[in-house]
Amino acid sequence: MKLLSFRYEGKEAFGPKVKKEEAVWDVLKIQNELGVLPFFPAQLIEGLSQGVEFVEQIRKLADAAAHSENPDDYKHSFSDIEWLAPVPRTPKNVICIGRNYSEHAKEMGGDAPVDLVVFTKSPASITGDDATVPVHSELTDSFDYEGELAVIIGKGGSSIPKRMAYDHVFGYTIANDLTARDLQSKHQQYFLGKSLEKSCPMGPYIVTKDEIPQAQNLSIVTKVNEEIRQNGNTKDMIRRVDDLISEISKYTPLEPGDVILTGTPAGVGKGFNPPKFLKAGDTVKVSIESIGTLVTHLS
Amino acid sequence: MKLLSFRYEGKEAFGPKVKKEEAVWDVLKIQNELGVLPFFPAQLIEGLSQGVEFVEQIRKLADAAAHSENPDDYKHSFSDIEWLAPVPRTPKNVICIGRNYSEHAKEMGGDAPVDLVVFTKSPASITGDDATVPVHSELTDSFDYEGELAVIIGKGGSSIPKRMAYDHVFGYTIANDLTARDLQSKHQQYFLGKSLEKSCPMGPYIVTKDEIPQAQNLSIVTKVNEEIRQNGNTKDMIRRVDDLISEISKYTPLEPGDVILTGTPAGVGKGFNPPKFLKAGDTVKVSIESIGTLVTHLS
Repeated sequence: MKLLSFRYEGKEAFGPKVKKEEAVWDVLKIQNELGVLPFFPAQLIEGLSQGVEFVEQIRKLADAAAHSENPDDYKHSFSDIEWLAPVPRTPKNVICIGRNYSEHAKEMGGDAPVDLVVFTKSPASITGDDATVPVHSELTDSFDYEGELAVIIGKGGSSIPKRMAYDHVFGYTIANDLTARDLQSKHQQYFLGKSLEKSCPMGPYIVTKDEIPQAQNLSIVTKVNEEIRQNGNTKDMIRRVDDLISEISKYTPLEPGDVILTGTPAGVGKGFNPPKFLKAGDTVKVSIESIGTLVTHLS
Repeated sequence: MKLLSFRYEGKEAFGPKVKKEEAVWDVLKIQNELGVLPFFPAQLIEGLSQGVEFVEQIRKLADAAAHSENPDDYKHSFSDIEWLAPVPRTPKNVICIGRNYSEHAKEMGGDAPVDLVVFTKSPASITGDDATVPVHSELTDSFDYEGELAVIIGKGGSSIPKRMAYDHVFGYTIANDLTARDLQSKHQQYFLGKSLEKSCPMGPYIVTKDEIPQAQNLSIVTKVNEEIRQNGNTKDMIRRVDDLISEISKYTPLEPGDVILTGTPAGVGKGFNPPKFLKAGDTVKVSIESIGTLVTHLS
């Protein structure tokens, strides 16, 4: 299932893509008007905590609408909605992994870290697909892209054993971990350089984990104005998704709706000589196999 | 006003200390039963966003209860409530400043940073006054204390000019930025070593800013088992509160309920030779002039 968050007539909502149509089922409307289920969470994050059960509930709601007298009453065309990031507001900062692909660690001028490098981005920096993001030229001269696989946590937990890790994954999306390189290095800790306005585009939707049985063999390609910059594969992650979930949750709990950005492959702007940083007018497209493409316009 | 968050009969609530009594006014109950105000926010964070107006509303509610027929119906004795951190759950990670006192920068083996060092702690690590916190001996051999002045943001904002900074301060509390030193250094970015379970005690309450006209001249003392370890003063901050608010908000928005830990003075456990890290059974008391004392028990 492709699950998206959107705004329709000013109200935030979520729902699954309608199969073979450029439209979304409005599951809250379906539940409110058709009363299909004894209970359905009105808040996305509450639903995520229920994991696969939530996916089943959404399926039932979409089926009920599809078989109702007026299916069109319960869906919105993509042209009528404003796309939001699939988790528009994470319950804490977005959790990010640094230098998790060897070739990227090299281009950044170092070895792959022995111990996990974990930093965060402000949830206020989250934006959706097709967003227009300023290059923040008054704050940085080196605004850079990083295409990444993003893991959406469903059920929360602490000290999650590696073999149970996928029980806590709700699904996946695509992220562009936009970074002010100068701020990242001069402030030592990455938070500020990673949290500029709209510097965390994610989307276009969550692909639920049942559709991605093998997250560690997905091609990941980042293009800037159609020039391929990053051409990697999630099989080259140093610390894999199950390892990341197990390791992070050993130190600090993961909660429903948390998002982990799993690191970026080689080919960021800073890795080129001379560097190729983002300019106003650029378009960045991050594509991940089995998920889709996240588009970001720079202004 | 001293404003505290608490749990009473299983429900989370907040209210001001009753003057000259060891008790708290239950302002939500007052509003619900006496209907004093046309509107009063049920959520603390919503109230914080209104700044001084919220303080005025709370005052009116407490006054109404004090002059009602049965004032005792609207207050709870401190012995009947569970104390929570004054902001029990911040809207994003707790924002922390590294090495903001020169003598502390020295004891950590470096100079004071030229550019602001900003890292974060998970909001899941927040706990209140008088909490019992594990020393996490299975994860770290160097769990350390850091007494700090915590600034509670009221009205949010971006690019806040320094001269307007205090308009965005709701009040102050005390924090103990508990830190696993080994994890802090080996993971490079501080997030994991700063986010262990219950590693962010804060409290006992918010002192609203009208009671602290000069935040930059407060003594701050940390004792471990009655031994004075840190004996500083907020006048020695390198980057002052107004500067921190202005500088952080230049890069990323501050939001109502955000908490900024302003850095710790010299005298942390790591600064001693040999180091004096925390052990199970220790009690840490952080006292800040005009605010009070935050007590944490280690287990």
